[in-house]
Amino acid sequence: MSSQINAEILSIGTELLMGEITDTNSRFLAGELKLLGITAVRMTTAGDDKVQLTRVFREAMFRSNIIVASGGLGPTEDDLTRDCLAEALDESLSLDPALEQGIREFFANYRRGRMPEHNIRQAMLIPSAKPVINYKGTAPGWWVEKNGRVVILLPGPPREMEPMWRNEIKPRLEVQFPGNIALTRTLKVFGMTEATVDEAVEPMFHLGNPELGIYAKPEGVHLRLIARGEKAPRLIADAEERIRAILKEHVWGNGDETLPGLAVKLLEANNLTASVFDCGTGGVITTMLSEITDSGKIFRGSITGESIPEGWNTLEQLSQQDTISPARAETLAVFVREKFGTGIGLGITGITGISGGSGTPGTAFIALADAHGNVTWRQTIIPRRDIAPNQLAVSAFFRLRQYLLGIQTDF
Amino acid sequence: MSSQINAEILSIGTELLMGEITDTNSRFLAGELKLLGITAVRMTTAGDDKVQLTRVFREAMFRSNIIVASGGLGPTEDDLTRDCLAEALDESLSLDPALEQGIREFFANYRRGRMPEHNIRQAMLIPSAKPVINYKGTAPGWWVEKNGRVVILLPGPPREMEPMWRNEIKPRLEVQFPGNIALTRTLKVFGMTEATVDEAVEPMFHLGNPELGIYAKPEGVHLRLIARGEKAPRLIADAEERIRAILKEHVWGNGDETLPGLAVKLLEANNLTASVFDCGTGGVITTMLSEITDSGKIFRGSITGESIPEGWNTLEQLSQQDTISPARAETLAVFVREKFGTGIGLGITGITGISGGSGTPGTAFIALADAHGNVTWRQTIIPRRDIAPNQLAVSAFFRLRQYLLGIQTDF
Repeated sequence: MSSQINAEILSIGTELLMGEITDTNSRFLAGELKLLGITAVRMTTAGDDKVQLTRVFREAMFRSNIIVASGGLGPTEDDLTRDCLAEALDESLSLDPALEQGIREFFANYRRGRMPEHNIRQAMLIPSAKPVINYKGTAPGWWVEKNGRVVILLPGPPREMEPMWRNEIKPRLEVQFPGNIALTRTLKVFGMTEATVDEAVEPMFHLGNPELGIYAKPEGVHLRLIARGEKAPRLIADAEERIRAILKEHVWGNGDETLPGLAVKLLEANNLTASVFDCGTGGVITTMLSEITDSGKIFRGSITGESIPEGWNTLEQLSQQDTISPARAETLAVFVREKFGTGIGLGITGITGISGGSGTPGTAFIALADAHGNVTWRQTIIPRRDIAPNQLAVSAFFRLRQYLLGIQTDF
Repeated sequence: MSSQINAEILSIGTELLMGEITDTNSRFLAGELKLLGITAVRMTTAGDDKVQLTRVFREAMFRSNIIVASGGLGPTEDDLTRDCLAEALDESLSLDPALEQGIREFFANYRRGRMPEHNIRQAMLIPSAKPVINYKGTAPGWWVEKNGRVVILLPGPPREMEPMWRNEIKPRLEVQFPGNIALTRTLKVFGMTEATVDEAVEPMFHLGNPELGIYAKPEGVHLRLIARGEKAPRLIADAEERIRAILKEHVWGNGDETLPGLAVKLLEANNLTASVFDCGTGGVITTMLSEITDSGKIFRGSITGESIPEGWNTLEQLSQQDTISPARAETLAVFVREKFGTGIGLGITGITGISGGSGTPGTAFIALADAHGNVTWRQTIIPRRDIAPNQLAVSAFFRLRQYLLGIQTDF
């Protein structure tokens, strides 16, 4: 019950065939299936068309034994997924009183009103389908088992589909197809290119189990380990240890950790506040911070600008150093720390395609001022407007993290 | 030669079936086909697997007469698209000397080196295929015509695929399938919900030609008109006039125009500079601006913060009004205008889930200070962290646009 399992993913909706929305469900489901040790052999997108969609279900069930479909479970006449699967399985739809009750209650509780009559379509079921509860909407999912095949119907909106997958579908598949479930671990790396990481961890690609993947992301390079079998926890732990021994202080986090998140957490733990003078990321560093809950208590404020305003007298010395330099970064850090009255001030200066001043494109400086004095780091960045601001902001958070943890880095 | 045309879109690559990347090519191609008046009836994603992919080509060619595939044209042994199409068409691959020459020259000119020998795979062709030039990479596309079917192979990376589509494929399809080409126009709306716009323009949905679509986007509601046939330009113009008469000053732009872009352009035309004190969008307004080329000359800087730093004496009065109010927004606007020495100062204050202060969640104020005095607008926003910052930033640019154009709005 392992190598013979083929899965297919279906995305249903005419708006997908019109190019009006991007299908993100298929990628999500493909990644999730892979973690369960189930390979998707094909993904198909079909419109809300009775003949076509019925044919798509028939073909998929002929080829594969797990079909995961999303979309077309809405209440309108265009939503044909239930009807087409019924047709493909030669079964008839009938009203399920318990489902009807559930949908009426959903409207009473969350929509403060009576159920529109067309929503009754969502309470229809076929004999081989078991309904799957939807906590985020009115469309129940379907779990169908017939002739050795499992067909799963999920709602199209990701905010309904993903929780249903995680809470209801994934656990059932884990029971039904055990043994192949994977354990994963993501390690996050700063200050190395994808190619350099690839070369450094090269021997680990031949392990097979765990499987190693390298991905270049806006926040740096991610390494993903996927291990299977009884020994998975041990295999992952060993591989992680080897990777950390190779990449050393380049590894800064794992899983869902982010650099701005870690920086804010460390500031909080050290009872410190911070502010930033940003002549380099064009505000990216500020928006990254504001996306963290309650970060405003720690990060008190920022000034973003292309050049220093005249008349800010403390900064007049800067007119003599309107170039990308360590001294400029330090002046900015000291100024903003004083102005916002924070424990730490960060000063950032670099030509990123956004900020002005003169200097070498691709060279930036990050300065940190606190009660003990100043530190400055030189940061090499790719001088492209679409990359540099993000890269420089991430670098600043990395430097701040290392500083707060007392880690020396020579890169 | 119109209603009988069925198209299918294929995306090829095992990384897609693994959930490692999102397929954006299919959406792009579906939208482009729709504008040519060609309906995609199905989209399929297949891996780099000889048997499966050959089957996918055979099935698609059996059902449809236009097949557009992307991916799998690289130089490695995993890139099987050429081989599988050859197999599905019962033809043999052979080396095309002109293609080989082109690839060798590409390496000599752009990669400063000799062509790696495995790149020779990209110079293979079948008798019914004509090569399509790739200005952005080494993989030529294929244009295949056989048995009344057109099969198009495109490279997978969007930065190679999209220019090849626009410059080489689209013009050929326009010649081959004329008469159905569509003209489109997008109108952009501020200050109305999708449902309100839907209701207001309801009669226009029945026109058929032009076809009308409504889309909720982060910058507001978009209306897209698609007209076909000889009279398309006139039909679009008439429909646009009707929509503008209904929605009046809610319509602020069209096509690729953006509110920050228009605001910067208008400031430049009026020889004005600007700065912003942002206690509401958490830096979003600043990053939107910095994404506009050379906006730094016009938008001189911004201050972002949760609360006003103590000791900034001009702002001391604010400690008495640390609440969301028109007065607070005005003080911020006046302060930042003076500090940065700009013609216009914007002050933004609102509880968006990011900024602090006390006040009514969902109510924000935008103030503008210039040489003539101050203006303030009340702005209702959805008080959700994932929506409000963007909505408030867009609102500020809309207000600035209206002010600079001298347009009065009562919403």
